Amino acid sequence: MQFTAKDIAFMLNGTVEGDPLVAVNHLAKIEEGSTGSLSFLANPKYEPYLYTTNASVVIVNNSQELTAPVNTTLIRVENAYGAFSLLLEKYNTIKLNKSGIEQPSFIHSSVKIGAEPYIGAFAYISQDVVMGDNCKIYPGCYIADNVKLGNNVTLFPGVKVYFDCVIGNDVVIHSGAIIGSDGFGFAPNADGTFSKVAQIGNVVIEDNVEVGANTTIDRATMGSTYIRKGAKLDNLVQIAHNVDIGQNTVIAAQTGIAGSTKLGENVMLGGQVGVVGHITIAKGTQVQAQSGVSRNITEEGKKWAGSPAIGYTADMRSNVVVSRLPELEKRVNELEKIITELKKKGD
Amino acid sequence: MQFTAKDIAFMLNGTVEGDPLVAVNHLAKIEEGSTGSLSFLANPKYEPYLYTTNASVVIVNNSQELTAPVNTTLIRVENAYGAFSLLLEKYNTIKLNKSGIEQPSFIHSSVKIGAEPYIGAFAYISQDVVMGDNCKIYPGCYIADNVKLGNNVTLFPGVKVYFDCVIGNDVVIHSGAIIGSDGFGFAPNADGTFSKVAQIGNVVIEDNVEVGANTTIDRATMGSTYIRKGAKLDNLVQIAHNVDIGQNTVIAAQTGIAGSTKLGENVMLGGQVGVVGHITIAKGTQVQAQSGVSRNITEEGKKWAGSPAIGYTADMRSNVVVSRLPELEKRVNELEKIITELKKKGD
Amino acid sequence: MQFTAKDIAFMLNGTVEGDPLVAVNHLAKIEEGSTGSLSFLANPKYEPYLYTTNASVVIVNNSQELTAPVNTTLIRVENAYGAFSLLLEKYNTIKLNKSGIEQPSFIHSSVKIGAEPYIGAFAYISQDVVMGDNCKIYPGCYIADNVKLGNNVTLFPGVKVYFDCVIGNDVVIHSGAIIGSDGFGFAPNADGTFSKVAQIGNVVIEDNVEVGANTTIDRATMGSTYIRKGAKLDNLVQIAHNVDIGQNTVIAAQTGIAGSTKLGENVMLGGQVGVVGHITIAKGTQVQAQSGVSRNITEEGKKWAGSPAIGYTADMRSNVVVSRLPELEKRVNELEKIITELKKKGD
Repeated sequence: MQFTAKDIAFMLNGTVEGDPLVAVNHLAKIEEGSTGSLSFLANPKYEPYLYTTNASVVIVNNSQELTAPVNTTLIRVENAYGAFSLLLEKYNTIKLNKSGIEQPSFIHSSVKIGAEPYIGAFAYISQDVVMGDNCKIYPGCYIADNVKLGNNVTLFPGVKVYFDCVIGNDVVIHSGAIIGSDGFGFAPNADGTFSKVAQIGNVVIEDNVEVGANTTIDRATMGSTYIRKGAKLDNLVQIAHNVDIGQNTVIAAQTGIAGSTKLGENVMLGGQVGVVGHITIAKGTQVQAQSGVSRNITEEGKKWAGSPAIGYTADMRSNVVVSRLPELEKRVNELEKIITELKKKGD
Repeated sequence: MQFTAKDIAFMLNGTVEGDPLVAVNHLAKIEEGSTGSLSFLANPKYEPYLYTTNASVVIVNNSQELTAPVNTTLIRVENAYGAFSLLLEKYNTIKLNKSGIEQPSFIHSSVKIGAEPYIGAFAYISQDVVMGDNCKIYPGCYIADNVKLGNNVTLFPGVKVYFDCVIGNDVVIHSGAIIGSDGFGFAPNADGTFSKVAQIGNVVIEDNVEVGANTTIDRATMGSTYIRKGAKLDNLVQIAHNVDIGQNTVIAAQTGIAGSTKLGENVMLGGQVGVVGHITIAKGTQVQAQSGVSRNITEEGKKWAGSPAIGYTADMRSNVVVSRLPELEKRVNELEKIITELKKKGD
Repeated sequence: MQFTAKDIAFMLNGTVEGDPLVAVNHLAKIEEGSTGSLSFLANPKYEPYLYTTNASVVIVNNSQELTAPVNTTLIRVENAYGAFSLLLEKYNTIKLNKSGIEQPSFIHSSVKIGAEPYIGAFAYISQDVVMGDNCKIYPGCYIADNVKLGNNVTLFPGVKVYFDCVIGNDVVIHSGAIIGSDGFGFAPNADGTFSKVAQIGNVVIEDNVEVGANTTIDRATMGSTYIRKGAKLDNLVQIAHNVDIGQNTVIAAQTGIAGSTKLGENVMLGGQVGVVGHITIAKGTQVQAQSGVSRNITEEGKKWAGSPAIGYTADMRSNVVVSRLPELEKRVNELEKIITELKKKGD
């Protein structure tokens, strides 16, 4: 793909400053731009690169003032960051523009497929699956009996969805994610062995959710494990049975949520956080990476840190003292010595 | 599937109280029951739902007394929880009742397959593999050369088993789990590079083990990595080379065990626990989520917590003081000031 | 495979002491040796086993002195450990000696395949992929559009490589690893929802890298996520977008590196470590398992521990005091009481 500055300015409703016929064929950061690069400048911190970049074209805000000569062609737009994001998205759409049904794939005769599907080779779509329009099922995916997919669902290569799960519209699931594996439920027996508790519920993923690579979401024992509208899960996240992840909640990589816990809306969890089972986390809660949440959080919009998690500021303060604990202990030793002497004198 | 209250009472050896012909077609929690639901009541905490539930049928203990009118049909049995678990299990068995060999699959001519197999499309079964009876190999699984599977082994979609591994009877491995990948062994060279140490051992999984989704179990450098009889591993667990996991040991999600460590029987590890390499953990040890075990644990049946782990109660107490450390430090500052003054006076 | 002591001595340029015709057919640790085993002795700690082992042949150093009668055949070599490692490697090479292109596989007509490939059944190799010589692509792997592989690349079963990624020579990637999934980038909107930031960069894996099972490496937003020459990543590791992992850096299992962080050469990270985004870690840094690195580390070759990480020795010392914090608090309580009394007296 190759475009001229003029083409791009037309797409973005912008104006060209410089050579309108200069051609670009890839996107790059302004500091890494080379001949053929299209870049952007939005953050003033990066302005110095505007005067030194080798990018052929740079998108800037209309308001951008120039304090030195510029060797590149500029495209001025209302919002440079927004305009560039739009280009990124278009670029990606073109990159991921697969369609048709490849062979060999395994599609049960009972499957209902919406308009304009992509089904890659070695994909397996089982009995009574229903797929909406514009679904992209990449190679090696597995969709078990009775799964429902909405419109515009993308399953990247190797995603596995167990039976009865329900996936909404505009959902993206990255490679290797497992949806609907058994919850971890075992009843102890008198002889020390464990009996499996059958896990017959499902997973419900609502609209606009994104699930990261190799993330695992277990089916409910009964009922459903929920990932609500707009939630975003990073890679290698673990969601246990009967968990309920609130709308627009964001969970960073390697975090785990134990069974039956309910996260409110717009919660943000850092990476490697652990949340125990059977608790409720209030709306807008933010939890620092590597923290461990072991109790209900009822107050909305607060920040937490530490394992076990306490208030974020309190945790920061405690951490500082932890690093000088050996010294603190010495000071207490010293005080005890002095006191003993003072008492002797006093007697 | 649809059953009457009478059918179910017959299966469970129970007695019907109410309409024996009312029909149910799914299982639900008592608090979420609707027309057609079959529920149960075992925990007295949930008794109020018995009088308000919309479930068509509820299984209760023979001993259950009624303190208000009930609108649903009851089935009385000796042990309501046990009876319901039995139904869950039967339900699951029906759900997972796949059989036959689907095409295209790849089965080497030397493979020995037991009675009544299920081998899904895109499954790959390599040279000299031996499979017992009633094995279910879901689509996209890979079983390398010379692997042995016992009877009643279920590999959910996308499980990969490397060469020479041995899997016992009644083992369930969830999607995406990797059995027998190389142990992480590299010998440092003088120039800062590393040379791989070949990993030629295997993994031995004994009877009645369950392995969670996307869990990884590395093959031994030499000899075997063992997962002993009845052990249960959750999702995203990491078991390094030459580890030995004891009988009936239970490991929650995202926990990692470093190389050559030996866990005793009936150990329980919470989620996100780390255990260092080359240590031994005594029988019956319990470790709190997110803890880090860095030394041998020789005393049986004790609880541990913290990173590095100390006794559970000691850790709980230390955590409380950690949260008031800034205050403690201020108190020591104050004491030092007073002492300095007292000493001045004393001089 | 079966060899005589004489054959092996010839391969290793060693001398036989005992029966040159005794046959061995597998490798084993000296303490686990049985008839037909070939073992080695390098670590003096294991010398007692030399006199009791059932291994048929043991490789020892030329310098090894015998303090008791030996019942097994010895092969004496300059460096017993090195010689045995060589055998391990040869054994592994034979074990993994797959070749040819199996059917059904999916190979786009535009793909360029080097000499002596192995492409397993159900592997998917997409448009414009270029593969070097001696590549082994195991069953169920997926290689997206425009990916480049060097020579001697091994992708174990089920590896997924997203579009545009570049993999160097002599790279090994274990089962279930995901290369090039989208970075976790979402821009918050005023209504609490998030808009995806398209991730159009790639992943570049340089020569001699090994990547563990189910590890995830995200593509850059723009530009590249780098895994430099000779780096070794264990299982279930998370590498976020735009991260740069230095040459010969070693990362143990379940560790996660957040976005845009740069690790220097020969860094060593223990298991379950977390490193925040947008920082730089100096060459030769070593970080203890379960630590959390939250700031730039500029001094080379230092050891760190704790979450947040501080100097290793300081952390060890603080941990000791943490475990006696409840006692320390009591001592401060006691001091306060005494001081109050002393002050009373003084007044």
